[in-house]
Amino acid sequence: MSMLQSTCASIVPACRAAAGQAQARMDGKTKPRGSLGRLEELACRLAGICGTADPALPARAVVLMAADHGCAEEGVSAYPQEVTGQMVRNFARGGAAINVLARQQEARVVVVDMGTKATLEGAEGVRPARLGPGTANFTHGPAMSRQIAGAALEYGISLAAELHAAGAGVLAVGEMGIGNTTSASAMTAALLGQAPEQVTGRGTGVDDERLRHKTAVVARALAVNRPDPADALDVLAKVGGFEIAGLAGVILGAAVRRVPVVLDGFITGAAALAAAGLCPAARDYLIAAHRSAEPGHAFILRRLDLRPLLDLDMRLGEGTGAVLALTLVEASLRLLREMATFEAAGVTDAGA
Amino acid sequence: MSMLQSTCASIVPACRAAAGQAQARMDGKTKPRGSLGRLEELACRLAGICGTADPALPARAVVLMAADHGCAEEGVSAYPQEVTGQMVRNFARGGAAINVLARQQEARVVVVDMGTKATLEGAEGVRPARLGPGTANFTHGPAMSRQIAGAALEYGISLAAELHAAGAGVLAVGEMGIGNTTSASAMTAALLGQAPEQVTGRGTGVDDERLRHKTAVVARALAVNRPDPADALDVLAKVGGFEIAGLAGVILGAAVRRVPVVLDGFITGAAALAAAGLCPAARDYLIAAHRSAEPGHAFILRRLDLRPLLDLDMRLGEGTGAVLALTLVEASLRLLREMATFEAAGVTDAGA
Repeated sequence: MSMLQSTCASIVPACRAAAGQAQARMDGKTKPRGSLGRLEELACRLAGICGTADPALPARAVVLMAADHGCAEEGVSAYPQEVTGQMVRNFARGGAAINVLARQQEARVVVVDMGTKATLEGAEGVRPARLGPGTANFTHGPAMSRQIAGAALEYGISLAAELHAAGAGVLAVGEMGIGNTTSASAMTAALLGQAPEQVTGRGTGVDDERLRHKTAVVARALAVNRPDPADALDVLAKVGGFEIAGLAGVILGAAVRRVPVVLDGFITGAAALAAAGLCPAARDYLIAAHRSAEPGHAFILRRLDLRPLLDLDMRLGEGTGAVLALTLVEASLRLLREMATFEAAGVTDAGA
Repeated sequence: MSMLQSTCASIVPACRAAAGQAQARMDGKTKPRGSLGRLEELACRLAGICGTADPALPARAVVLMAADHGCAEEGVSAYPQEVTGQMVRNFARGGAAINVLARQQEARVVVVDMGTKATLEGAEGVRPARLGPGTANFTHGPAMSRQIAGAALEYGISLAAELHAAGAGVLAVGEMGIGNTTSASAMTAALLGQAPEQVTGRGTGVDDERLRHKTAVVARALAVNRPDPADALDVLAKVGGFEIAGLAGVILGAAVRRVPVVLDGFITGAAALAAAGLCPAARDYLIAAHRSAEPGHAFILRRLDLRPLLDLDMRLGEGTGAVLALTLVEASLRLLREMATFEAAGVTDAGA
């Protein structure tokens, strides 16, 4: 049995008993029942994920995977392909939005080169996990082989294991890759059976004409490759990306260790869709940080039955939304751990 | 001229030039234009408030004012009136939700007794600013005299000045007072000309029958007192509360010093409505943290032209939503200050 198969076989659903116990604890705190709204719900979900009604405050890491996409040569992005490598260097130097937000949220940033066009020699602090100089152009054939997609997944599983062993108790996920909203749109269309027009958006900001072209590129990718919606590995290989497959692996590797994964926007959502396709129970370990402006994201959230915590009109990626939501993860757990009970505080409990 | 009059006369609109300069700075950062969504908008608003395109990261304080409401004797709340004083003791001991969240967000908590029924002797860390043992029952006559309402406002103005002098660069506001959603509903109905049914909600969780009763109490308060919608001080005095008037003063005192005020939910919204009634320019200094579950809150936000940052189904008060939003205030300013520019990072700017 491969590492991928054994990982998927070992993921168990979240613990409903622990989640219920956490809600009972919350109900005894000095506040009207339910008045902390989604923070209460989040605390209970985290309890279920961790399998205890008293989860510790977790150390945080954000896994930021970058790769290039062959479909960029179709002119689907407002930015040239060289920007992927340039931004990876920016991540390594700490100058990007994700670095700023991760510093604020005290999250370790783990930057992984899953296969950019530029070779990035000498970019310190970037983990090399190159599967090639970007994927192939999927309008002509598969983005990568099934074997390479499996290797990306297994790299992600191993990375989650390593970060967990090093102390991370929650993983935020993010990505960078010029052209990757096109890949995510193709994956979403394939896995959810949606028309390309419904799940293709403006990405980093293309105009109407380019949006029509991008939608046609997605349609061509599906027509040329005919990915099997029942086989998430097939979808990842044919129309996915190295970083998307790697992040699907991170999700599986976190889920098998009962580590919550905070998703970012559309592209990490496509990775989550693939992970849930490979192992439906992995869904229980996912927290949706924010609602992306990309239209395909809403379809993914609905399928995964996830409701995002934030809605700030963000569409940057990099894990920026996910890292912002870490503050809510921490807040919910602190409330569960630190608030006084009605009894201890001598406050009358009307049971409302 | 009174302190209230001179404060209102000295509040100037936010600086549009500084806000525009902040947007230009944001546009040079390594990200597609506008892709940080509401965080960019927030940074620019803060720049306008502070009057500089490079605002410092502000030290934070939350002003939590508590008072009792005579209308509680009409049975408008699910909780008995003694809970106000009990919760103030809980705040002083650090056991309430606001204490937990303020510790996380490194915000100083300033608890003020504006007039609770219990006298709270020996509650350390509670500032005494008692205007009486709660307001009068406004179904029989005014909640307080115009003079007392003015005193509450001026106390708030002085407190904002003191906190600003002590280093606070942003103020979150919160409140506690059994019955105070009823007062906020009456104020909102009066100031916005809405029917009581449209602006009266379940507060901490009353049932259908009690909601009908609560709505009737609001209608009676308006019929008995006939507050003048063009005179916010009249509205505060006749159907407001000590803590609501105090918080309106905090808003004015912050605005005159160009200090941003992060509002919490419905009750602090009613205070903001009163402050904007006294001085329309004060509105520029307000940031709406979250959308409350109370129906009256949406009317207030619309009138003040504010869009809340968070929507987490919270309905606790205490400043909990406001303090959570402080993390977004900080994030937006850090992005403005710390992100690399396209030029410095050597990243191609497609201008998208």
